Amino acid sequence: MADAVAPAEQSKSAMKKAEKEAKKAAEKAAKAAKQATMPVVGGKKTDDIIGITVSKADNFPQWYQEVVLKAEMIEYYTEISGFFIMRPATMYIWNVIRKWFTAEIEALGVDETNFPMFLSAKSLEKEKDHVEGFAPELAWVTKAGDKNLEVPVAVRPTSEAVMYPYYSKWIRSHRDLPFRLNQWNSVVRWEAKQTTPFLRAREFLWQEGHTAHLTEKLAGEEVLQILELYARIYEEILAVPVVRGKKTENEKFAGGYYTTTVEGYIPSNGRGIQGATSHCLGQNFSKMFDITVEDPAEKGKHINVWQNSWGLSTRVIGVMVMIHGDDKGLVLPPRIAKIQVIIVPVGITKSTTEEAKAAHATQIADIKKTLLSAGVRTDEDQREGYTPAWKFNDWELKGVPLRIEFGPKDAAKDVVSYARRDTGEKGTIPIAEINTKVPELLETIQKDLYTKAKASFDEHRVVVEDWEKVIPALDAKNVVLIPFCQGEKCEDKIKDLTTTKHDESPDASVPQAPSMGMKSLCIPFEQPKELAEGTKCLNPECEATAKSYTMFGRSY
Amino acid sequence: MADAVAPAEQSKSAMKKAEKEAKKAAEKAAKAAKQATMPVVGGKKTDDIIGITVSKADNFPQWYQEVVLKAEMIEYYTEISGFFIMRPATMYIWNVIRKWFTAEIEALGVDETNFPMFLSAKSLEKEKDHVEGFAPELAWVTKAGDKNLEVPVAVRPTSEAVMYPYYSKWIRSHRDLPFRLNQWNSVVRWEAKQTTPFLRAREFLWQEGHTAHLTEKLAGEEVLQILELYARIYEEILAVPVVRGKKTENEKFAGGYYTTTVEGYIPSNGRGIQGATSHCLGQNFSKMFDITVEDPAEKGKHINVWQNSWGLSTRVIGVMVMIHGDDKGLVLPPRIAKIQVIIVPVGITKSTTEEAKAAHATQIADIKKTLLSAGVRTDEDQREGYTPAWKFNDWELKGVPLRIEFGPKDAAKDVVSYARRDTGEKGTIPIAEINTKVPELLETIQKDLYTKAKASFDEHRVVVEDWEKVIPALDAKNVVLIPFCQGEKCEDKIKDLTTTKHDESPDASVPQAPSMGMKSLCIPFEQPKELAEGTKCLNPECEATAKSYTMFGRSY
Repeated sequence: MADAVAPAEQSKSAMKKAEKEAKKAAEKAAKAAKQATMPVVGGKKTDDIIGITVSKADNFPQWYQEVVLKAEMIEYYTEISGFFIMRPATMYIWNVIRKWFTAEIEALGVDETNFPMFLSAKSLEKEKDHVEGFAPELAWVTKAGDKNLEVPVAVRPTSEAVMYPYYSKWIRSHRDLPFRLNQWNSVVRWEAKQTTPFLRAREFLWQEGHTAHLTEKLAGEEVLQILELYARIYEEILAVPVVRGKKTENEKFAGGYYTTTVEGYIPSNGRGIQGATSHCLGQNFSKMFDITVEDPAEKGKHINVWQNSWGLSTRVIGVMVMIHGDDKGLVLPPRIAKIQVIIVPVGITKSTTEEAKAAHATQIADIKKTLLSAGVRTDEDQREGYTPAWKFNDWELKGVPLRIEFGPKDAAKDVVSYARRDTGEKGTIPIAEINTKVPELLETIQKDLYTKAKASFDEHRVVVEDWEKVIPALDAKNVVLIPFCQGEKCEDKIKDLTTTKHDESPDASVPQAPSMGMKSLCIPFEQPKELAEGTKCLNPECEATAKSYTMFGRSY
Repeated sequence: MADAVAPAEQSKSAMKKAEKEAKKAAEKAAKAAKQATMPVVGGKKTDDIIGITVSKADNFPQWYQEVVLKAEMIEYYTEISGFFIMRPATMYIWNVIRKWFTAEIEALGVDETNFPMFLSAKSLEKEKDHVEGFAPELAWVTKAGDKNLEVPVAVRPTSEAVMYPYYSKWIRSHRDLPFRLNQWNSVVRWEAKQTTPFLRAREFLWQEGHTAHLTEKLAGEEVLQILELYARIYEEILAVPVVRGKKTENEKFAGGYYTTTVEGYIPSNGRGIQGATSHCLGQNFSKMFDITVEDPAEKGKHINVWQNSWGLSTRVIGVMVMIHGDDKGLVLPPRIAKIQVIIVPVGITKSTTEEAKAAHATQIADIKKTLLSAGVRTDEDQREGYTPAWKFNDWELKGVPLRIEFGPKDAAKDVVSYARRDTGEKGTIPIAEINTKVPELLETIQKDLYTKAKASFDEHRVVVEDWEKVIPALDAKNVVLIPFCQGEKCEDKIKDLTTTKHDESPDASVPQAPSMGMKSLCIPFEQPKELAEGTKCLNPECEATAKSYTMFGRSY
């Protein structure tokens, strides 16, 4: 099985097995949890929650699937394969991103719109490269009720062909430029490849911006403005470091002029992952869809507008989970956590008087109120029939950034005890200071998560100038920066040369998984160093001169 | 053509003709506008904007189509019939509603979710009445790329059958109740009927809430809570009066237990229109999808949960347009207007000095700044090459609630001149007071719009206790409140009896349109008066006793 997209660590069948195991474990956990919610009899059970059953280091794919299931972010849509249900824990994060990005692009003058979800074959055919890029993944509606449609319609995989016929109508003069619309919707790409929650799904949520400009320069400026917003979503909101750069010709958007991208890195398997892309479409689409204005500099001369399109999808959430999570489950950066602080009552025993219990509850309510007033999203866990330890595990599984424990001993010292989700660090804070110290601590957690992830990405992004060292570098979970000629065929060759093909084994019961070839991730805007003049492309079979250091890696 | 859904005023072919004419007029307007944006040569043109070409009273359907097109709310999606593009003017309003409603339901404890857009035939078949209700309108995906799907999937027309299999999994105990999820998405109902922007489209945006409760009583309380939120969206945000009530058996949601509704009224044609519905599904779905919890009152006994679903769609926007608009175009209530106040500079002539012009521009900028600081969404129209009169028309067409005119004469008196969009009333406000008077005026406009619409609805909602007076009342653009037995067959009969069927005319060149029969709109919670004991159902062919006054009308 020499499929270039097969995962590095294991074959597809092994992936499927892991997926099945994850589902089975999740069902077991659900069953256990169901039992756990039964009334407590004699103070037994309830400590037997089943958390994540594998370690992140040992079996990353299964770990990931368990985390997104058990932290209640995702449910597999078993009715139709390749689709996922996004649960409230996911939608909260997506809405934080949505609000932030909406405010930013509104300030740039982008308006919101909503186009139909279907496109006609006719519009689709206008831009040939574009349609070829998407045709294999189009979902076709051919019937309505029990009648066949005269002309089948496809569910949009992206909306260039849906929207641009109207840009031609609406853009009447250079005064209408820049013309900028964005929509939040879901798109369908009926992937044949293995799907993974958030990262690759047959339907996903995203925003797609589509803009038109008078000149290449103005279009290019916006491409980078938007790319910077995407980078900030990763870095400032999700605490995920990214590398900003340009895609090679092989990897750019079908039908576009050039594509810029933010690229992430998953330490657990050393793979690169495309974060979000901002495309300059050039004049390709404006020629096909006849989107012109009169040149303000030359009466009577019509020019085709310069277009951009840019999109960020729910994939961002998967990247965040993969990077920050640990063997206990999800780890949420405070800025996207619906519950930033969970207060768990402790130290209440059978011998605690009713009066003491009531006083304790009041103290906890006060702490919660203080934190809420300080703008901290806080909740308390007063569930009965669960031990504190069970609750700790439950909130750790769900990624809540900070746990506050509070019991009579804390009360006696006028402090709260805390435990950080990211590091496990414990300490106390005087109750009188929680209104300032807790927000500070949350900011520290946010920063530390980013710093840790950045150190890992920086360490595993290595310059390689000796071809023989490429595969060892990849095997050591690095992405590599290599001198590269930027040739399209050369890039194909590099992928091919770095794919490990195993001979057919006579012993078919011991199949060996192939290693994934590397592909280009981006040409980083920030080059690692100056390219020495006359440096050859690193591909040993290529004679051309390198144009830049280009980031390659095994990737999603 | 005895189609019960045919419009009262004209046949379907006449509707189609009107639609074509509206499109033609819109294209003409667009062309004119395109010319209008050409550089001005010799101070000519620009006053020739083509506004609404028919009066609301004379040709309501065409008037409506022109308004939504020319106010740039809607564009027809000519690629696929029955679909509409929602432009920024629409999405702004939808987002105001979305934000308000989201905050309200979050406070109730409803979480956001996102389910796939496709449903499998298997899930769909579980609830028979439900599937029968939607089957004729389902869009079926049968192909992905060039391969036929093994099992076709339908685009969701609503998500009961998509979501409830998972409710069975997630609801594990009575402690999980109430279980409340909502999603914002688009749904597809491939209507065979004539489509109309906002009111009836093959795809529309909505929110759909799906909740589960322990008892009928708890479910019923939520049904009414949500219904009240819907009523407030109409009344407080859109300035549209509605009647709250319950649907009859004939008109309730397919597969549900009972349906509550807010019903609106369109004065121009006297038709009722369903505003939004909040359904109690009872235990029908929980039995089909096996959604049970253990009875907290009786160990070991499992009970099926009580479910609700409730939805509000972009239809609300169409109702608002129909009610408030006038012959100049759209009229927006201030609370949903993206631009609440437009400042148009006036009194600048050829003889105005550059210095005076600059001073004037500064004064306008100051006024704008003051209003923005007061929380008023304000813009100024400094477009060159357009006369003030042209600008007045343009902003009136787009529905901006308040126009401020400001010129040297106003400056001399330290006032601004204003014109209300809704009444045309003109006046002046001292500049020193605009920060308070303008917000007050906007609130007055909001209230006046509601009061006017309410007066019209109140006047045209008449109690009729004599069968012979029913059709004359409908012809006088009323909806009627009649004693009604609430029988299903009786309701069919009433529809039939009130449909005017014309004999085939020997002179086919003078076709006469049938008059639409009336159907029940709702059983109002607030009854017009006490029903005298033993009152007969008003249907002359019915022997039963009336159970309530029920609101009937010709309707959308």
